[in-house]
Amino acid sequence: MLLTILGTGSGGPFLGRNFTSQILRAGNDLFLLDCGEGTQMQLFRLGVRYDRLRHIFISHLHGDHVFGLVGLLTSFSLKNRTAPLALYSPPGLRELVETTFRVCGVRLSYRLDFNEVEADVSSRVFENAGLEVWTVPLRHRVPCTGWLFREKPRPRHMRGEMIEVYSIPYEKIPALKAGADLTLPDGRVIPNRELTTPSDPPRAYAFCSDTAFSEAVADMVRGVDLLYHEATFTSDEEEEAAFSFHSTAGQAAEIARRAGVGRLLLGHFSGRYQDLEQHLREARAVFDAADLAEEGGHYEV
Amino acid sequence: MLLTILGTGSGGPFLGRNFTSQILRAGNDLFLLDCGEGTQMQLFRLGVRYDRLRHIFISHLHGDHVFGLVGLLTSFSLKNRTAPLALYSPPGLRELVETTFRVCGVRLSYRLDFNEVEADVSSRVFENAGLEVWTVPLRHRVPCTGWLFREKPRPRHMRGEMIEVYSIPYEKIPALKAGADLTLPDGRVIPNRELTTPSDPPRAYAFCSDTAFSEAVADMVRGVDLLYHEATFTSDEEEEAAFSFHSTAGQAAEIARRAGVGRLLLGHFSGRYQDLEQHLREARAVFDAADLAEEGGHYEV
Repeated sequence: MLLTILGTGSGGPFLGRNFTSQILRAGNDLFLLDCGEGTQMQLFRLGVRYDRLRHIFISHLHGDHVFGLVGLLTSFSLKNRTAPLALYSPPGLRELVETTFRVCGVRLSYRLDFNEVEADVSSRVFENAGLEVWTVPLRHRVPCTGWLFREKPRPRHMRGEMIEVYSIPYEKIPALKAGADLTLPDGRVIPNRELTTPSDPPRAYAFCSDTAFSEAVADMVRGVDLLYHEATFTSDEEEEAAFSFHSTAGQAAEIARRAGVGRLLLGHFSGRYQDLEQHLREARAVFDAADLAEEGGHYEV
Repeated sequence: MLLTILGTGSGGPFLGRNFTSQILRAGNDLFLLDCGEGTQMQLFRLGVRYDRLRHIFISHLHGDHVFGLVGLLTSFSLKNRTAPLALYSPPGLRELVETTFRVCGVRLSYRLDFNEVEADVSSRVFENAGLEVWTVPLRHRVPCTGWLFREKPRPRHMRGEMIEVYSIPYEKIPALKAGADLTLPDGRVIPNRELTTPSDPPRAYAFCSDTAFSEAVADMVRGVDLLYHEATFTSDEEEEAAFSFHSTAGQAAEIARRAGVGRLLLGHFSGRYQDLEQHLREARAVFDAADLAEEGGHYEV
């Protein structure tokens, strides 16, 4: 999986940082996470070929996470898109989008599937051959959910030379990759470990957009390879963070530490900070593998 | 008056040109004309100090002219704005904004005054000490109005030396500036032309956002100093222009020629054109004082 950051700013007037939005590539699939105003501009500027986007996940309905959605959906239509598009969000998105389109006379050229999910329980909301997506309930002013992308266990790798050695027919290979032993015509059984090597470990990415510090989040994102966690403030604004249901960089790092994640990306920075060195310092004091998300940056999961 | 262009693109995916939006300064007043997605970003990038914006005029409810509005209004609130803000638009804007704010939990810190106007008749919708704003009915797929900003006649200029020569009391000056003659204590009458010089001619700006070619528009914008007229296409797309209720650059110039305006600015360019030289050539063949609007460009009215 590869994550591309489109915006690292938080709510409030535009002060040079784009609003929250990310692209997650997983194999041939492309997922958009949040869609603040200007997301379609960022997709263009960063050269993301987003025509094959089929799934958009919106964490909550605050403007800095959703006000770019109607523009993006309309633009797809003006390019005569026909492939259906699925939306996942807390309740309310359908009313927002449908009212906007009715008032503005937008008739989409493609089907929109709304999946309004409960933001306060952890549940699987999407699944395809390669991965699952789970909600990650967050603590915010309004119903808000993070998203956990978890790859499914992958097939083991065949040792190519064994196919010849044992004259393995093609149709038996999927079972062997899934872990079965091989029974030869003469009755001999070849154990799977002689025929295959271990699969790549499934990877996991968790996106925690807007949340007050919450230990429950650490439980839900345990062991993910990459955690994006908002870090709106530094520690001197811890009170304001609590009041506005946001986190400090140190709190984000504390979640990463407790969850034992591989790497932490910080984002959703308040416009009051020009310089983000203090965010980084405070996070690394708690969890070493922490970085500031950068707009246009690509991050391997 | 001074016009600043924020965006010159048309609908469709973002392809490098920003969506329609303009700032018109008139004395101490600031007016925003249309508010496509990304308008608040452009205001920031161009360094426009827009806190004192009190009036926003939306020509019609297509996304490329209005999808930036809810973000801008929300940002004002997050800066704790208290001054009321007046919106002028065809019907529907109130429902769009109020539904968005309800679904997204936005509570503004200031009062919003909706003025939904008839887009198919020419009428005066705003007036202050210095100018009037009139609707300019346009021919588009949906109710759509341009806006005509017309300064009121200005006071004549006093000849400073005459105040001393005739010992003119301060309270008599407004009447003299308005054109009255002066009667001296001894009964002599001094004609106004001896006391004042002519006022500056009132200026006028017309904004025609999205429209098929329409002779009626020329009547309504007759003699304005500056006309912005959409020029989505070049002449080889004249059929598509008619079908989509847009204009070619040559048609925009024909409106300018018939209306006898001082200067024409072309905008709302289709994303299919990288190069706009043909737009300019076709317009100037009809009306010499034509220019391409440029994002970030300032134009004296």
